[in-house]
Amino acid sequence: MRKIGVKEIEDIAAGAAVYGTGGGGDPYVGKLMAIDAIKTHGEVTMLDVDEVPDDAIVVPTNMMGAPTILIEKIPNGKEAINAFSLLKDYLGKEIFATIPFEAGGLNSMIPFAVAATLGMPIVDGDGMGRAFPEIQMVTFSLGGVKSTPLVVCDEKGNATMFNTVSNKWSETLARAVTVASGGSTMMASYTMTGSQVKKTSIRGIVTKTEEVGRAIRIAKNKNTNPVDAVLKVSGGFELFKGKVCDILRKTDGGFVRGESKMTGIDEYKGKSIKIEFQNENLIVQTNEGEILATAPDLIVVLDIETGHAITTETLRYGNRGIVICIPCDEKWRTKDGIKTVGPRYFGYDVDYVPIEQRIKSRMGEF
Amino acid sequence: MRKIGVKEIEDIAAGAAVYGTGGGGDPYVGKLMAIDAIKTHGEVTMLDVDEVPDDAIVVPTNMMGAPTILIEKIPNGKEAINAFSLLKDYLGKEIFATIPFEAGGLNSMIPFAVAATLGMPIVDGDGMGRAFPEIQMVTFSLGGVKSTPLVVCDEKGNATMFNTVSNKWSETLARAVTVASGGSTMMASYTMTGSQVKKTSIRGIVTKTEEVGRAIRIAKNKNTNPVDAVLKVSGGFELFKGKVCDILRKTDGGFVRGESKMTGIDEYKGKSIKIEFQNENLIVQTNEGEILATAPDLIVVLDIETGHAITTETLRYGNRGIVICIPCDEKWRTKDGIKTVGPRYFGYDVDYVPIEQRIKSRMGEF
Repeated sequence: MRKIGVKEIEDIAAGAAVYGTGGGGDPYVGKLMAIDAIKTHGEVTMLDVDEVPDDAIVVPTNMMGAPTILIEKIPNGKEAINAFSLLKDYLGKEIFATIPFEAGGLNSMIPFAVAATLGMPIVDGDGMGRAFPEIQMVTFSLGGVKSTPLVVCDEKGNATMFNTVSNKWSETLARAVTVASGGSTMMASYTMTGSQVKKTSIRGIVTKTEEVGRAIRIAKNKNTNPVDAVLKVSGGFELFKGKVCDILRKTDGGFVRGESKMTGIDEYKGKSIKIEFQNENLIVQTNEGEILATAPDLIVVLDIETGHAITTETLRYGNRGIVICIPCDEKWRTKDGIKTVGPRYFGYDVDYVPIEQRIKSRMGEF
Repeated sequence: MRKIGVKEIEDIAAGAAVYGTGGGGDPYVGKLMAIDAIKTHGEVTMLDVDEVPDDAIVVPTNMMGAPTILIEKIPNGKEAINAFSLLKDYLGKEIFATIPFEAGGLNSMIPFAVAATLGMPIVDGDGMGRAFPEIQMVTFSLGGVKSTPLVVCDEKGNATMFNTVSNKWSETLARAVTVASGGSTMMASYTMTGSQVKKTSIRGIVTKTEEVGRAIRIAKNKNTNPVDAVLKVSGGFELFKGKVCDILRKTDGGFVRGESKMTGIDEYKGKSIKIEFQNENLIVQTNEGEILATAPDLIVVLDIETGHAITTETLRYGNRGIVICIPCDEKWRTKDGIKTVGPRYFGYDVDYVPIEQRIKSRMGEF
């Protein structure tokens, strides 16, 4: 148990951008919401997963929609609170704590704003260990937690509650309402007991993102290489270094989809790669078709100078970046996990190979 | 107060097809559902609006979606019951009766299936006096009744409850869920007290459709002209007689939209008209651009031989029909009514002129 204040939020937001793997929404807007709530209501208590009583009720909160939308359609700050309190009324039970739905991107911050405003603790865990584009893609699902009752609220004051036959149907229907609401909503769902949190969440991920964010900050202050710092703390691997030479992006069906191409610099000169994304980066391959990494491992583009992550919606021609890959949580490497978020789910006809194995076999090439 | 059995249902369904003004869904599927429920659970008690106690709770039921969908995606029969009982649980109050949302088309029948199954009375009234494509287009809205809490259920078992900031937002969000659910859902909404029913509903419309249906049946038995019988009972006017020579129709955004063209026969030989529709027929004009009728008046194509209404989704090349227009209820002829369902709402740059006036001024031409 520890207190999270403004300084911690800054580090968590920087690390969350990395764990957003290109998507998850720019944490900047969420960071402002969280800081504002903490300044108004006080610091947030963060609990380790093991500190949550087994029978306590925990409810994740998050934004649903395409990250591109959020740049122009700013939340009014009440949507997430509305969703939370409507769910509470429906359950007819006190909610003990909230927990990030996804630790990557904007959604790392929303739960802090909610926790500060409602004066409740937050749990140091999440359902992704990164960001993913669809709401059934959480380790809570793998652990048998139902997504419904699920509430989405928009900034106009509309509230919708779903009870569905599967977590995939929750995605389909809630996405439709989100698109009809203008492209983004706030959500409360996957109501869990403390025991379920212990069984299904990815533990300590908020602290992990904070460590990554802190490493970037310290590297800047000490004028050392921030990318090296990120790789060290996250356990990631460098895949490529280059300049963005082409970018294709469209917001479609509640997602931002597209691809970016990069040409190599320094030791990667003469080579080029392509990254494809649906909100998040999904697959990176060379011009020759060699696959360097795929989801569920985390593919991230870091700014060469600052070490900060560049999101898919801000990536633009001329950006100089280092592409890294961080191993995903072991929960995603099970049969069910790969079925839910592996490359085949996203339409790529390739098997998932853990990044450590890919690196090892490429090392063997030399 | 009277009992509605299988024979009455047959007549009501035939009349409801006329009052569907081309849309509202083919009553055939709904008729089978209603007859099946009556055979299983017994006849339904129909109350006059004045027989409803002022403080009793009345909830309309209806299908939402494009009529074309229903031909292939048959309801499983439980969606409407699910929607009704979820709403009841949410309200925490007993529901005294149901009432048709729209007396036209399929939606004339659904409430009978629900009433029979749940053993509750039905009220002889509705919110349209016909069929309209969007759910805010009810006289309940004009009378200040809120559409929410609004529940839609699909045949897969998904249930969604909306609380919106306006009845138009209910239309937008519930339509999005309906499309995502495959194009049709069953709905319970516009919870009212008996006093509100008295103030806002269109009274006696079920009996009116029954009278029209009975007139068609009797004309057939007596071998007299069924179209004349419909005109007499409904107070409608003949606009045109012709053959369908062109039809354009697409299912799009939860609606079936399009237009049909007809060339005249008999006394209309040499003339031609065009009818445009969004689920329901909205406007009919001659080839020269003279407007013969617009919504909210009821534009209906009747089969020349049988007098039965031809719906927009079954209309096809070669159909021989008589186009008639029935005056709409006076509630739609108010400023608010015309704003909600007049030709300008549907995108036509013309003023609404009541059909009686149009007929009168055309009579003056001679």
